[in-house]
Amino acid sequence: MTRIQNNNQHQPADVDAAIEYANNNNSRHLEELKELLRIKSISNLDQNRSDIEDAAGWLANKLAAIGMENVEIVPTKGHPLIYGDWLGYGDEVPTILLYGHYDVQPVDPLNQWDRPPFEPEVVGDYLYARGVSDDKGQLHIFIRALESYLKGAGHLPLNIKVLLEGEEETTGESLAEFVPTHVQRLKADAALICDTIMHGKDQPSIVFGLRGICYVFLDLVGPDHDLHSGTLGGVIDNPLNVLSHIIAKLKNEEGRILIPGFYDKVRDLDREELRINEAVPFDQQAWLRQTGAPRLWGEPGYSAIERLGSRPTLDVNGIIGGYTAPGTKTVLPSKAHAKISMRLVPDQNPQEIFQLFQDYMSKITPTTVHVTCKLANAGVPSVVSLNTTAISAAKKALEEVFGTKPILSREGGSIPVVGLFDEYLDLDTVLMGFGLVDDRIHSPNERFFIPNFYRGTETVIRFFDLYARTFQGRSETD
Amino acid sequence: MTRIQNNNQHQPADVDAAIEYANNNNSRHLEELKELLRIKSISNLDQNRSDIEDAAGWLANKLAAIGMENVEIVPTKGHPLIYGDWLGYGDEVPTILLYGHYDVQPVDPLNQWDRPPFEPEVVGDYLYARGVSDDKGQLHIFIRALESYLKGAGHLPLNIKVLLEGEEETTGESLAEFVPTHVQRLKADAALICDTIMHGKDQPSIVFGLRGICYVFLDLVGPDHDLHSGTLGGVIDNPLNVLSHIIAKLKNEEGRILIPGFYDKVRDLDREELRINEAVPFDQQAWLRQTGAPRLWGEPGYSAIERLGSRPTLDVNGIIGGYTAPGTKTVLPSKAHAKISMRLVPDQNPQEIFQLFQDYMSKITPTTVHVTCKLANAGVPSVVSLNTTAISAAKKALEEVFGTKPILSREGGSIPVVGLFDEYLDLDTVLMGFGLVDDRIHSPNERFFIPNFYRGTETVIRFFDLYARTFQGRSETD
Repeated sequence: MTRIQNNNQHQPADVDAAIEYANNNNSRHLEELKELLRIKSISNLDQNRSDIEDAAGWLANKLAAIGMENVEIVPTKGHPLIYGDWLGYGDEVPTILLYGHYDVQPVDPLNQWDRPPFEPEVVGDYLYARGVSDDKGQLHIFIRALESYLKGAGHLPLNIKVLLEGEEETTGESLAEFVPTHVQRLKADAALICDTIMHGKDQPSIVFGLRGICYVFLDLVGPDHDLHSGTLGGVIDNPLNVLSHIIAKLKNEEGRILIPGFYDKVRDLDREELRINEAVPFDQQAWLRQTGAPRLWGEPGYSAIERLGSRPTLDVNGIIGGYTAPGTKTVLPSKAHAKISMRLVPDQNPQEIFQLFQDYMSKITPTTVHVTCKLANAGVPSVVSLNTTAISAAKKALEEVFGTKPILSREGGSIPVVGLFDEYLDLDTVLMGFGLVDDRIHSPNERFFIPNFYRGTETVIRFFDLYARTFQGRSETD
Repeated sequence: MTRIQNNNQHQPADVDAAIEYANNNNSRHLEELKELLRIKSISNLDQNRSDIEDAAGWLANKLAAIGMENVEIVPTKGHPLIYGDWLGYGDEVPTILLYGHYDVQPVDPLNQWDRPPFEPEVVGDYLYARGVSDDKGQLHIFIRALESYLKGAGHLPLNIKVLLEGEEETTGESLAEFVPTHVQRLKADAALICDTIMHGKDQPSIVFGLRGICYVFLDLVGPDHDLHSGTLGGVIDNPLNVLSHIIAKLKNEEGRILIPGFYDKVRDLDREELRINEAVPFDQQAWLRQTGAPRLWGEPGYSAIERLGSRPTLDVNGIIGGYTAPGTKTVLPSKAHAKISMRLVPDQNPQEIFQLFQDYMSKITPTTVHVTCKLANAGVPSVVSLNTTAISAAKKALEEVFGTKPILSREGGSIPVVGLFDEYLDLDTVLMGFGLVDDRIHSPNERFFIPNFYRGTETVIRFFDLYARTFQGRSETD
């Protein structure tokens, strides 16, 4: 293990040298990111298993090459985790745990991509590829920061642990098993997660809340084979019509979810959070341009910012049944399938919500069909404390680099690891991401704003230094 | 043109010789039918255009080979029609117009077939293949009957015109243009259409009513690309949730259609028809076994037989949107597509119904999505008169062959040609088919009960003779 000369004592690293190193290597690091982006590490498709292995191997090699130690590809029942650390100081110097995920969403619908999703291409200020914003570009930001210290300044300013996951876009089961059973190994003072967005190209943001998720596969079976809709229409119930009635009963047209008990545990917003929400800038026209939707919409009585971060949702993510090829076919189908996900907020629990969902299904499903519900994915919602030295250091680093104070906000997505860290590791989490709302993550033509790939690296470099100094200052002066 | 010796006078053909010829050629004719079944004449897929041409060519060759005259493949804007005739007598002897369609439904879902759909196979008493019951096996029945007279008895007992269509399973547009513009060419006393079912293997049936159809493609577009359901769920409306609400508003859970004005022109059943409906045998357990559905279902206040034949329906035939591959993807989709068909009864008009559908859509679709409705297929409903000499001859022929009186009933499917013949040709239509309710037409593993392929041929042979004799008798004795 690398040991800093003056053992167990913090030795300031040369921040400027690290930043200079990063700036001198921008182009090379962008090319390296492209290498990672070329690996089709879609986590929820069996056919991409070897790509997942390739991505894990690429990252482990990378961590070792830049000087991280104890680098290990941790096999799991699913996709491997990657662990590496640099513990040059002892316990007196703080440790930051870095988290990112190397898996990506599927690329479907492929025909809506302007270029192949795994052939990264720079167009103007953007780099286009599946996973470039979520999350390969963002995890590469902290890998660059580590390299810049280790190669540019000789050592890091504090202890670092790195944990990378390959199942964030799917079940997350392996991480959920690993964290509770490796508490000592993951022990740290703070966690930095780069997997969120900024509220504008020049407006840095810190996310303090994330929604959880309860993702359900709903299957209906009526007749045991597809029937002729003329010969039998009117006598045999149609699973697609039934499915529509069921979905209509899950959420009303205004956006209010109708599952009994669904809102029982939703925590009311306190005054502090209402104040923070009001401070989040919201440009409705920009949102409409970014989404192309005719208008905004949602649960009455809540602002758009509240509906995004602080209120739960229910969305049909996919639906299929009957004849879906071009042209007409007069079929009364046997089966109907829907993928339905609910985004949860504190203190909703995905297992409890799934139970409520099932109870409701058994109440509203008619006896003309058989229904099955399967919990496909579960993640707990989380809110992290804003009154920590880690958040203070992150705020300062963002302001130094972007020239403006960061906005604090909750975000609508789900990063299950935040809930895991919260439950099992006693540390302060910082959600500081560099994506943008129009990065089209999970969608065709995903992209990443390159200037913030560079500014993000400088921010992380400064954050490490500022956080280390907070502790140093305390031990020297307190 | 072949002319019968004693011109303009009916010359009885040898029915027994024709039946003997048919029986002697059962195996060969079954092999011929298999040839036709191997041609993938799916009418609604562009990729099968050349198969459609092949099927048309096969049938035209066949008609010419058995001795039909003036055989012509009639080009159209869509798929060709086939015409052929044998007018060996003059106007004093009746003419029957035979109709069948050589196009078939798509084979999707292919994985539910036990064998390739275009590789016909005999298993027990059944011949399995796409289109064997609907309608290639049935049209081959009357082609066999024609051959049996022409080759086995030397001539037909009356004048025959044959009209075969290649768009019955799709738009039917070419026939809809051809019939009104070729009234003289198609002039006949009666029409025989073999494209319906019997009410049991040994229970012959004559259908006197068919439902019409109004088939609509419904498309919704919300955001202009797929969004992340976490990042934007709760602020942007979801076209799949909207589609479900729309479909739920089209028909209630009991089966009552909710489009304003939809039932306005539905003709009430008269006493005679109520009596006929009551005579139709209905074995609920058999229907459940055949369909595999948990229970029967439908509009309250009407019997199953009434709901099938005499009441209109609305069914979702297919639906697709969002992420439909295996696994999870948290997408808030841009688009939703549904194929919806309504079966119509007299005096509903498909164009009027489509207008009512569109009006309703513009009323119930929220402003969060753009909606488009396209009329994909339209066919008028029809009821044919039962008090005709043609129906009498058909009844007698069926009873002679099957040993039991035929049941009269309406059927739930649509055969648009019946409405066309009704509107433009002054003739008596006979709907005498030899399929069974569990032939799985339009579904995987379509099949045809081979014994009725043979009995059907004998029935048609006898029907030609009986109908011809009705006229002869009249001119001799009246």
